[in-house]
Formats: sequence, structure tokens, C-alpha cells
Amino acid sequence: MDHAATPPSNHPPSESPAAGSPRTRALTEVPALTEAAIELLRTPNSLAMLSADDALVVVTHMRLVTFPAGALMLREGDQSPNSYMLLVLTGDVSVEMNDPASTHPMEVSVLGPGSLIGEMALLDGQARSVSCVATSTVQAGGLSRKALERLIDVHPKVAARLMVAIAKRLSDRLRAAGEQLAMMSQIGKA
Amino acid sequence: MDHAATPPSNHPPSESPAAGSPRTRALTEVPALTEAAIELLRTPNSLAMLSADDALVVVTHMRLVTFPAGALMLREGDQSPNSYMLLVLTGDVSVEMNDPASTHPMEVSVLGPGSLIGEMALLDGQARSVSCVATSTVQAGGLSRKALERLIDVHPKVAARLMVAIAKRLSDRLRAAGEQLAMMSQIGKA
Repeated sequence: MDHAATPPSNHPPSESPAAGSPRTRALTEVPALTEAAIELLRTPNSLAMLSADDALVVVTHMRLVTFPAGALMLREGDQSPNSYMLLVLTGDVSVEMNDPASTHPMEVSVLGPGSLIGEMALLDGQARSVSCVATSTVQAGGLSRKALERLIDVHPKVAARLMVAIAKRLSDRLRAAGEQLAMMSQIGKA
Repeated sequence: MDHAATPPSNHPPSESPAAGSPRTRALTEVPALTEAAIELLRTPNSLAMLSADDALVVVTHMRLVTFPAGALMLREGDQSPNSYMLLVLTGDVSVEMNDPASTHPMEVSVLGPGSLIGEMALLDGQARSVSCVATSTVQAGGLSRKALERLIDVHPKVAARLMVAIAKRLSDRLRAAGEQLAMMSQIGKA
């Protein structure tokens, strides 16, 4: 079975999507998606922003992964030493968490093109904190931990700028979570 | 007035600590603190961990900032184009947020040596999301946006590994915030 951003031989079974076995190829084989990925990677950022050339270098390290509608892209709790993250290029993704009070998972958010998923487990090697389900056909650029390490080795400046962009996205999400927590704490008091 | 990680001439008034004007010098002028900073920077991380040599390179780009007990280290809402982050080396820091329901700020957490503060505003240039107050004398290594840009330029591989370490810390905090939100949502339902 082929997989996001790792060759089949390295494919850890715990990371296999439950529904739909995505087939991968080099993202640069599809010029339109390559262009889309470059644009989506260039997060507006006054600090160390990726240039179009930088973004192309990142894209050449990505695999194109296609998930059919309904496919489980990442599963909450899964853990793998060779994790990967996905840059959503087309389609929509439902982000879900187990709800201990229900037999159905709880939808936390819906993400579209430009969203990055799976970057936390890529960074810390810990278990996936959420599940991601394709709600339509999803095309994504996959970057494995090994590909990121290769990028740091061969194109360190590009890798540093990519990491700034990723850290910025995490920072945005952390600000949003902080605001949500403050709001919930206010509601709790009232 | 001297300041965290920017020369006085670049010192944006909005970033000035309200209590106590910290004086800075090169962190490497103090060997014991240099050693401490190196150890604290080497966050255990299976991905692209900083070596002791890498950490020393980062430390040479840091300024030593000393805050007296009671000093406001960062002020919620402050924004500056040349922001900076602080690696706490000694002492304790109270993290506080404005509480609209009270005239007193709400203490969100207490941080000790090894904690990184101010990295979000460094990354995104947005306003500080919290205030940080020194509860004892705090010595910290300050890294400005300019110093980080210089690091990316001159030591890109070290910068990439530092950014991985920073992103990992943000990721840890995001996981913790997610768990807190899930818990509060459960309490809200019950």
C-alpha cells in the first residue's frame, strides 16, 4: 500500500488510512498543483517569508497524495517514528476528536486548501491529537519527517524559513485556542 | 534605556518594561549562564535536535537581560516590528492575562528556567497575548527578530533546528490547550 510521504517499504501500519489507500507521486509531476502548493506555502509573514523559489524547493520534497471523499487521512491516537504532515491543496477536511460522551466523534473544525495538518506529530513524534477525514476528494502535498530532515541538510535556509512559517501557523492556532479558553472561562464564571 | 535584545536606538517605546529597566550584555560574557542556556535550548526532540555546538551558536546571538523582582517583562497588547523572545535562565515568571470581569489580571501560569516567552509575537509580529511579570530576579537570554534573521542568514542549519525546537514547544502548548478545551467542553455539557 502506498502512502502519504513515505515509500511503501517504510510504511508503518499504524499510520495507514483506514478508508481509501492513497496513491502518491512526486508533487512536481502535476504543474497546476505545484503552482498551487507554492502559493499556499507562501504564508504572508514579515519574518523570513518563503520566496516562490524557496517554496518550489519545499514542493520538490513533497509527495502528492490523493484521498477519496470519506477517507480517514489521519487517525487520532496514531503514532509513528516516521510521521508526515499534509498541505491541503484541493478539497475539504473535517477535523474530528473522540467524544467520550458519545459514540460519534465531535467535529472540531473544517479545513480547506492552504491548511496544514499533521505537523504537530511530525514535530514531536507524539500521537495524532485529532482525526482528519476527507469530506470531498482531497489532494495534498505530503512532507515526511525524513524529507524535512533532508531539506534541513540540503537547503537549510529554505528549511529554516519553512519552519518559521510552520511555527507561525502553530502560533496563530495557539492564540485562537487561548481566546477560546478565555471565553469559556468567562462563560463558566457567568 | 537598555533593552532585551535590541540596541537602545531601535528600542520601540511600546515594548519598554513598565517596572525596572533591564540592562543587557552579550550572554556569552557569563560562562555559567552560557552553559545553562545551552542545556535549556537542547529540548529533547527526536527531530533535528540542537547539538551543544548548535546551541552555543544560538547563545552567541542572545543578549543577557536581567529583570528585578516585580518587573513587567512583556506587556499584553504591546506590538513592535522588532520583537524578541526570552529564554528564562534563572528565576520565575508569572504569566498573566487581563480579566474583563476584574480589575486584577488573571494568572494563567508560572514559568521557570527553560521556558520560552514572547516567541509568538516574534514570529507573527502581532500583539503580545499575555503579560509576563518577574516574581523573583529573572535572568533571560533575549533573541530579537533581527538576531534570528541574522542566524538564518549566517547559520541556516542551526536556525532550522532552533525553529524546529520552537515549533515543538508551540505544538506542546497547543496539545495542552486542546486538552483543556476538550475538558472544559465536557464540563460545560455536564
